[in-house]
Amino acid sequence: MKIVVIGASGTIGKAVSEELGKKHDIICAGRHGSDVQVDITSVESIKNMYKKIGKVDAVVSAAGGAHFGPLAELTPELNEFGIESKLKGQINIVLLGMDNINDGGSFTLTTGIMMDDPIPQGASAAMANGGVKAFVKSAAIEMPRGMRINSVSPNVLIESWDQYGDFFKGFEAVPVSRVALAYKKSVEGAQTGQNYEVY
Amino acid sequence: MKIVVIGASGTIGKAVSEELGKKHDIICAGRHGSDVQVDITSVESIKNMYKKIGKVDAVVSAAGGAHFGPLAELTPELNEFGIESKLKGQINIVLLGMDNINDGGSFTLTTGIMMDDPIPQGASAAMANGGVKAFVKSAAIEMPRGMRINSVSPNVLIESWDQYGDFFKGFEAVPVSRVALAYKKSVEGAQTGQNYEVY
Ligand SMILES: NC(=O)c1ccc[n+]([C@@H]2O[C@H](COP(=O)([O-])OP(=O)(O)OC[C@H]3O[C@@H](n4cnc5c(N)ncnc54)[C@H](OP(=O)(O)O)[C@@H]3O)[C@@H](O)[C@H]2O)c1
Ligand SMILES: NC(=O)c1ccc[n+]([C@@H]2O[C@H](COP(=O)([O-])OP(=O)(O)OC[C@H]3O[C@@H](n4cnc5c(N)ncnc54)[C@H](OP(=O)(O)O)[C@@H]3O)[C@@H](O)[C@H]2O)c1
Repeated sequence: MKIVVIGASGTIGKAVSEELGKKHDIICAGRHGSDVQVDITSVESIKNMYKKIGKVDAVVSAAGGAHFGPLAELTPELNEFGIESKLKGQINIVLLGMDNINDGGSFTLTTGIMMDDPIPQGASAAMANGGVKAFVKSAAIEMPRGMRINSVSPNVLIESWDQYGDFFKGFEAVPVSRVALAYKKSVEGAQTGQNYEVY
Repeated sequence: MKIVVIGASGTIGKAVSEELGKKHDIICAGRHGSDVQVDITSVESIKNMYKKIGKVDAVVSAAGGAHFGPLAELTPELNEFGIESKLKGQINIVLLGMDNINDGGSFTLTTGIMMDDPIPQGASAAMANGGVKAFVKSAAIEMPRGMRINSVSPNVLIESWDQYGDFFKGFEAVPVSRVALAYKKSVEGAQTGQNYEVY
């Protein structure tokens, strides 16, 4: 398969690219220093990415951020980051990419445990995760040409613990290798409309 | 209690206002012909509403739309409607209103069954519902001063069947009176972080 991994230089994206790269051709995408440049917060940039890569069998998104901060200090403006990046960015990867996916191909997006097991400072990210999960479940029943769509919801990663551990009190971090398997299941398997919880 | 109902002239809002109006003072809000005018897609308009109404004990939102249409025809632009209205509109009611709610007061937002039991043409609305639900669950753990937040997820209504029934093949519509009770439970009860499914 020909697979584009958006966010391929990230902690998850790198592990997914390595896992899928054992059997498939990977195109790495991201804002900096990838095979193809893309900023998922820009509709034009996503369209350009698809023009450059042409037809592919699978699109994996392991990109998308959201603001972390206390609810009492969350403003509509700060909430925009998660809306533009993790939510709309990932959904626009699907809406703008449907014609670029071969019959039977797939999209795999990324959500996260915070929507199910909330943490302080996480409301905006939880919102984005919940929006992506619900979109995936609903979009799956309308995918044309045997195309599939799933999301992966990672727990906090052992590999990200130094960076995020303080937010996730009492969480049992998981290795990124387990998370990469969920993307593999989505891409190589036959299920659709799932949100794979790697908790 | 002093309760503002946003979308009070709608099918759900009217039933909620009547049910809560038996015991409480209701301020009706909406874009047209209400006690207080508000357009929830505008941050300025929400701020003005709160300036006018001052302190209240509860805010109920039964407002917010999203685009219905086939996934294959869903564009980033059409998806904006649900983002701006049902998703951001309702979340901004919370973010901009926290200082206007008395201690122990509550927010109640509206989601919908389509995120759990998807229908064709419903991906954008499902996205908005899922975002609101996850935001509510996460925001609940950070609400200051004993404040609470819940959402109500109605099935399609018997009262809306003529309008929406064609979309909801095989759904067992519910009476709006049952849905109104869920808002009453949210406002007068003590739970928080819930998404009351009236299915
Ligand atoms: N790490 C965790 O513990 C964890 C747990 C649960 C969920 N997640 C979620 O998983 C996703 C990836 O996490 P991660 O830890 O692997 O992130 P990361 O290490 O920060 O990597 C992010 C990747 O996405 C790319 N990227 C960022 N913004 C982009 C944009 N606007 N357009 C295109 N590419 C963009 C980055 O490359 P460029 O900077 O070059 O664009 C990078 O390759 C995020 O949504 C995160 O919320 C992570
Ligand atoms: N009806 C159903 O079967 C059903 C089922 C599940 C979920 N829901 C959800 O429940 C909510 C209410 O549904 P409904 O059927 O009661 O709707 P409705 O009858 O169309 O009423 C909508 C109400 O919201 C107000 N409104 C609309 N846009 C607004 C805006 N931008 N700012 C402020 N107020 C606005 C309207 O008044 P103005 O036009 O004067 O502003 C009206 O009072 C919607 O989110 C809907 O998705 C409905």
